[in-house]
Amino acid sequence: MNKLATKKLLDAMQKKDISQFLISDPSTIDYLVGYHTDPGERLLLLSIKRNGQMQLILNQLFPTFKEKDNLAIKYYNDGEPIIKELAEALEAGNIGIDKNWPSHFLINLMKQHPNAEYVNGSPLVDKIRAIKSKEEIDIMREASHRNDQVMQALIKKIDATTSENEIKEQLASLYKEYECDGFSFEPIIAYGPHGADPHHSTDDSLPQVGQSIIIDIGSSYKGYCSDMTRTVFFGEVSDKHKEIYQTVLKANEEAIKQVKPGVSFASIDLTARKIIEDAGYGEYFTHRTGHFIGRDVHEYGDVSQHNHNKVEVGNVFSIEPGIYLPGEMGVRIEDLVVVTETGCEVINLANKELTILPNK
Amino acid sequence: MNKLATKKLLDAMQKKDISQFLISDPSTIDYLVGYHTDPGERLLLLSIKRNGQMQLILNQLFPTFKEKDNLAIKYYNDGEPIIKELAEALEAGNIGIDKNWPSHFLINLMKQHPNAEYVNGSPLVDKIRAIKSKEEIDIMREASHRNDQVMQALIKKIDATTSENEIKEQLASLYKEYECDGFSFEPIIAYGPHGADPHHSTDDSLPQVGQSIIIDIGSSYKGYCSDMTRTVFFGEVSDKHKEIYQTVLKANEEAIKQVKPGVSFASIDLTARKIIEDAGYGEYFTHRTGHFIGRDVHEYGDVSQHNHNKVEVGNVFSIEPGIYLPGEMGVRIEDLVVVTETGCEVINLANKELTILPNK
Repeated sequence: MNKLATKKLLDAMQKKDISQFLISDPSTIDYLVGYHTDPGERLLLLSIKRNGQMQLILNQLFPTFKEKDNLAIKYYNDGEPIIKELAEALEAGNIGIDKNWPSHFLINLMKQHPNAEYVNGSPLVDKIRAIKSKEEIDIMREASHRNDQVMQALIKKIDATTSENEIKEQLASLYKEYECDGFSFEPIIAYGPHGADPHHSTDDSLPQVGQSIIIDIGSSYKGYCSDMTRTVFFGEVSDKHKEIYQTVLKANEEAIKQVKPGVSFASIDLTARKIIEDAGYGEYFTHRTGHFIGRDVHEYGDVSQHNHNKVEVGNVFSIEPGIYLPGEMGVRIEDLVVVTETGCEVINLANKELTILPNK
Repeated sequence: MNKLATKKLLDAMQKKDISQFLISDPSTIDYLVGYHTDPGERLLLLSIKRNGQMQLILNQLFPTFKEKDNLAIKYYNDGEPIIKELAEALEAGNIGIDKNWPSHFLINLMKQHPNAEYVNGSPLVDKIRAIKSKEEIDIMREASHRNDQVMQALIKKIDATTSENEIKEQLASLYKEYECDGFSFEPIIAYGPHGADPHHSTDDSLPQVGQSIIIDIGSSYKGYCSDMTRTVFFGEVSDKHKEIYQTVLKANEEAIKQVKPGVSFASIDLTARKIIEDAGYGEYFTHRTGHFIGRDVHEYGDVSQHNHNKVEVGNVFSIEPGIYLPGEMGVRIEDLVVVTETGCEVINLANKELTILPNK
């Protein structure tokens, strides 16, 4: 049981006048009470009442969980009217609903219990999850250092005979070797023009001389995700591509320098964006500068022009500007940063200097 | 554009008095209009009005899609108030909502457009998807035949030195060799007592003489899933385990014989369950007898005591009874069946006779 986070959540419920919060997100449930399962299409719910009463609702087919502290466990069978039972014990007032709870559960609950106000409760807990503890940061640092080592080992494996798919297979082996738990997202290994296609899937292409190679990879380590990108060149690099690389690197480095408590995420995004715009490539930087990360590879919060919130100590997010020339090439450089009292710690240490792989 | 399915859906909307249906399920959208993407946390929506007007709502970052027939495309940017725009054009009356639409979208829509009745619309289209066309059945048959071949090749690879994890790796290679697209679900390779643990993940265990080995595997082929289970024994089999195997096999075969248009799914479940109960293992058959399958490995509809619907021509589902002795062993035998006019076609052909692998 994460007593500190639970206490913060109860305070937030009090402040926002939420009488009961129904949490379905498996990562959040694990974060709060230390129970993890993938429920598939079945109902998994952690109910928290403002008075501190907590109940975990599990299907009989899920792994069992011992009652502990003041957390009650309720098991139900397939076919049991569990939403009706939930409705009968529901508080009055504002009911917080998990942002990703499948709508059919909510529609059913609202029908059985129409006299309540249903609101998106997730921001309450997502904001707590967005401030990582020292223990979480220690794990994430280690996860990213392993990702750095895997990245460096992986880059060494690329030669004229290795396809994108083969490099992806090597990546799976390397994560195993470094005792990481598989991919935290579908890795991107993109040679040449593939790097400009945001929807490219790795294929059997081989690298060609002069191509850029985008490598965007991450794994899971002790329940926390890593995520980083490096771009290297194969055989040689043109002056134009070198300039693009240096522009993206500068955007990455200057945005990182901006990160400290109190600055807005929008301003960090703007810093990266302005460098790329000033170099004449503004329209080719097609995405936000970064996203929050933790137990999930994409968590609540991002580094975008729409996010006017302020950076806080303990936030962990990516800084990943890029330039993509359709049909030609792409460059992206991505690091994870942890916000400290005075700035930030970059937890990816792998080389970012322009690298040209030998054509062998 | 799947004109037949769209026509059926409009008829169903008319019958159920649904004025507009908001579909977010990527498989259903692909099924109806031939567009597929994984939207992540962003909004992906196909809106269908009862008058036949259709609009696909895509983020600018998603793959583009050409307008065709009467399908309009609306692109939105991150930060654009797209739910507000949706609310402004929303019909009055009953609005069908996708069963899995993340609740925060629905809560936002209800706030912007409170004067409508929101209902779970998914059964309308799920019932159409549950009746496979000849083309779909041809693909699913081929998918399962490939799965049969992979299963037989995989079983040959098991010896005293192959861990569960190694067999899983071999499986990935075999699917590639047979031109199938990866796993349709996390495969189960479970030696001995692992077979009785429904939450077991493959590990580095080696098979021991006398153990059962559950192999539950599936892939995707041309967009459709396969899913089958075989159980074999390693080195030798005890009389007790042999009897358990024959009981499960009989339950599998007798349940399959029951399948024809007009019988209830509950009665098929009961047929399998009674055979296992009569053999004295009722409490060790801990799950439903089967699930529907198609583009998704678990689709709407199941073979359980709670499903009193009747079998229809074109349904495709699994028949997968099992017996699990905690701490000791498990047996499951699973085939996919396609319902025909007079009964069913079993589309898994791999051997089901009791098999004892040589201890080498």
